Amino acid sequence: MLLGYTMPRSPLGRAAASPPPPWHYSSDIVGVEFWTDPDAARFFLPRGLKPDPKTSGHAVAMFLDWQFTGEQDELLYPERYQYREFFVLLDAAWGDAAVAYCPFIYVDNDSALARGWIQGFPKKLGSIFQTRSFAAPSAAAAPVRAGSKFGASASAHGQRIATARVTLRESVADPAVMFNRPTVNVRYFSRLSAGRHDDPAVNELVMSITDNQRIVDFWSGDADLRFPEAQGEELHALAPLRIGAGFRCSMSYSVSDLRVLEDFAA
Amino acid sequence: MLLGYTMPRSPLGRAAASPPPPWHYSSDIVGVEFWTDPDAARFFLPRGLKPDPKTSGHAVAMFLDWQFTGEQDELLYPERYQYREFFVLLDAAWGDAAVAYCPFIYVDNDSALARGWIQGFPKKLGSIFQTRSFAAPSAAAAPVRAGSKFGASASAHGQRIATARVTLRESVADPAVMFNRPTVNVRYFSRLSAGRHDDPAVNELVMSITDNQRIVDFWSGDADLRFPEAQGEELHALAPLRIGAGFRCSMSYSVSDLRVLEDFAA
Amino acid sequence: MLLGYTMPRSPLGRAAASPPPPWHYSSDIVGVEFWTDPDAARFFLPRGLKPDPKTSGHAVAMFLDWQFTGEQDELLYPERYQYREFFVLLDAAWGDAAVAYCPFIYVDNDSALARGWIQGFPKKLGSIFQTRSFAAPSAAAAPVRAGSKFGASASAHGQRIATARVTLRESVADPAVMFNRPTVNVRYFSRLSAGRHDDPAVNELVMSITDNQRIVDFWSGDADLRFPEAQGEELHALAPLRIGAGFRCSMSYSVSDLRVLEDFAA
Amino acid sequence: MLLGYTMPRSPLGRAAASPPPPWHYSSDIVGVEFWTDPDAARFFLPRGLKPDPKTSGHAVAMFLDWQFTGEQDELLYPERYQYREFFVLLDAAWGDAAVAYCPFIYVDNDSALARGWIQGFPKKLGSIFQTRSFAAPSAAAAPVRAGSKFGASASAHGQRIATARVTLRESVADPAVMFNRPTVNVRYFSRLSAGRHDDPAVNELVMSITDNQRIVDFWSGDADLRFPEAQGEELHALAPLRIGAGFRCSMSYSVSDLRVLEDFAA
Repeated sequence: MLLGYTMPRSPLGRAAASPPPPWHYSSDIVGVEFWTDPDAARFFLPRGLKPDPKTSGHAVAMFLDWQFTGEQDELLYPERYQYREFFVLLDAAWGDAAVAYCPFIYVDNDSALARGWIQGFPKKLGSIFQTRSFAAPSAAAAPVRAGSKFGASASAHGQRIATARVTLRESVADPAVMFNRPTVNVRYFSRLSAGRHDDPAVNELVMSITDNQRIVDFWSGDADLRFPEAQGEELHALAPLRIGAGFRCSMSYSVSDLRVLEDFAA
Repeated sequence: MLLGYTMPRSPLGRAAASPPPPWHYSSDIVGVEFWTDPDAARFFLPRGLKPDPKTSGHAVAMFLDWQFTGEQDELLYPERYQYREFFVLLDAAWGDAAVAYCPFIYVDNDSALARGWIQGFPKKLGSIFQTRSFAAPSAAAAPVRAGSKFGASASAHGQRIATARVTLRESVADPAVMFNRPTVNVRYFSRLSAGRHDDPAVNELVMSITDNQRIVDFWSGDADLRFPEAQGEELHALAPLRIGAGFRCSMSYSVSDLRVLEDFAA
Repeated sequence: MLLGYTMPRSPLGRAAASPPPPWHYSSDIVGVEFWTDPDAARFFLPRGLKPDPKTSGHAVAMFLDWQFTGEQDELLYPERYQYREFFVLLDAAWGDAAVAYCPFIYVDNDSALARGWIQGFPKKLGSIFQTRSFAAPSAAAAPVRAGSKFGASASAHGQRIATARVTLRESVADPAVMFNRPTVNVRYFSRLSAGRHDDPAVNELVMSITDNQRIVDFWSGDADLRFPEAQGEELHALAPLRIGAGFRCSMSYSVSDLRVLEDFAA
Repeated sequence: MLLGYTMPRSPLGRAAASPPPPWHYSSDIVGVEFWTDPDAARFFLPRGLKPDPKTSGHAVAMFLDWQFTGEQDELLYPERYQYREFFVLLDAAWGDAAVAYCPFIYVDNDSALARGWIQGFPKKLGSIFQTRSFAAPSAAAAPVRAGSKFGASASAHGQRIATARVTLRESVADPAVMFNRPTVNVRYFSRLSAGRHDDPAVNELVMSITDNQRIVDFWSGDADLRFPEAQGEELHALAPLRIGAGFRCSMSYSVSDLRVLEDFAA
């Protein structure tokens, strides 16, 4: 009998792209709030979601350095499980509920990509970097304090797709404003059988469920954010028309569940 | 309405990890036939397949440099679509039919990874190289002729998982012996909803269908093949006990269909 | 006693970034001839070179897939020695001699980078791709014949710095026009001692010497070439004002010597 | 006139592999003290250094996540300047002075590689990872406290060359024991002119000079360290016979000078 939560399944279950849930995460985040054209944003929403009538066009871009572990000390194998990520969340509505939808997300690691697909995050590979804050004082340390600057960028297949710059201004006690909507994704797994290429085997609107979310050391400040045009990508269609607050924080949570909102393949 | 054969789906359908079928491929291959322990090999076969009673333990390892295109001149964007691959095929039986099963496969490209998952190939990321044959004469050219040597290797997350060496001896008119079994895979897409982690949304035994397969410039010769032990991998459990022929050839085919043999999730 | 042609030197001499000369190379090339602003080009020439009075502004951009070997079958270790390269050559004059000068060059391999520095090629790391021509017929094969299209690109640190497209029109018997100037480089190795940061330990104008150069399968055709603006790069200052011929060929040569034209550090 | 501290030099000096000194660094370090065979270690020492008569065979291996900046806010371009590093330092003697010599060092960034060569660090490219400590509490956070475990690894060209594991036991007020020797390197830049391949243009024994070194949050603990055998490398000849203390700390310093001890090329 083959074991493993994901492919490849094997006799010992040690070769799977991802270990089984629960999945535990801790990260540093450089983020920027922005407003894109509501008439563009609405065309990125999947079946089942509508523009948020009050905030359509409002969005957030985040660059994350992630550490991941399952139940087998995976954090001790950083070459396999540590990763970097960039994504955008668009304000949307599911019925009357205010939610966030992720049209694009990039990671530099196959285990993260596999988990993402299973969660409905439409991950592709990218190369993502953020200025880090180090403990040893230096012009290179980027301490978390007023006036410190953080740069971030994301690239895919050798094209820059996003750059950000955040200058910290003040510590914020309640960061809820940036993390107050549940994330809604689409789990989507295509068929290849002739005649069924447009009839996916899995097509579910799902809501992320996170346990024990902790957000610490949240600072806000001034920001810049750009989405350069790139071949084979459509992120630039969501380019910022107006920039809101920048922020830098650390966040952790665990994942072992997912709520299926609607099943379109049924 | 969102477009795209795979995630991420977008207004113009240009951001999907893979364009829709038909998919066209052309490759150079360095391969090695080998025999592993039949008692090990049987434990790698999925539900629905059994050891081939006549050839259990017989297998082939292949390293491939691939060029891919869909219908939109994707071959002109090699930074996005060209890729390298390593995989193993194990002899197996589906009922009375002799088939080949792929327990492990590695690629260095996200578009290839996405297509692989949809086909049932359990792709993870790797770094794969083979000695190439160049037209301009040189000690560095590796011409396709008797005595030429080709090296190949595959690594995952910084660990070497396979190395091969092939010395060409003779041109072979009919390479059927290496490509005479259809490939049978498992399409597998996990659920994350609590209580259903062991109940995949998709779990199908499928048979690959390839159109217009062409194999040219097939040479066979002597070979070496090794699968070093690696953390987080199980390939080494299929390490060669005996090495057969090595070979080097070029192969092309197209894909636009897949045959579902059994649906275990139904 | 430590052995090795380059750092790191070690007891057995097996760890050096590059084996000693002679170095043998074979490659496939996608190239584009172009004219940039002569007033820009002249500012890129080093001490000792002047604009070619007849052709200033004329240049060529090349994308190369290289196979390298020394005397120890290095071509059998493609993971360590195979590489891709992008560079620009500017027409220039050394005294009365027509030469080519390389202002920028990018490779994806440390052994190639080390050899480049020693030759005076100012290599940085990049990610370079070209459409390849495969033997097995397919829409993905890109055969070398009239009408075939080849794409190429180069990126550095996640920014696209060059893209090219070549459509083959005709086979050319004598490709000398593209390779009729010796390449002149600057070997440059900085000092770090205080007060000597502007006083390099090595600063030599040198001329490349290649043995047994062979150029085969040379085709010319139509071309496009772009150098997008990129942070931390200056290639875009040499952007094409006019595009000449595109070409695709294979080239080999060996290197075991270098001619020092002028020593500015003496 | 061309500008730039290193190649490539250009009209604006913005394309150089490295900006000019002063260079500022801040890092997190996972390190392991060990003893290798003194009879092996002595063969790795360059001309001008001898085994330390009291400690020959004593060494330290370090894995570092580095942030770098020059004077132009380079830390805001992490995609170009942030990097990871692995190196070994061997106890040695220069005359009567106790020093540390670096036989092998690997980085994942070309700017760091260029600076390294100029400093005499014999850098090659590698892939290096360490478990990081994140601020948001989680099973994935690896806080700096007693009992926390940190993994680290280094690979080159797809081969694992080093793995380490450190379990923190106690905070150490004075970490001098790990950083009490100046580092002595060899600046080495080869010639390619025929007949002079063994006659480097630069061959200097040099001592690193660091300003404002700060070491903070130093914890020591139990450790494991392995150097697996790898083709094209000789690190495994320095494999640990006995493991000493593991440690985890943060370190910063600046560099703008280098002391030349002996010039063997003069």
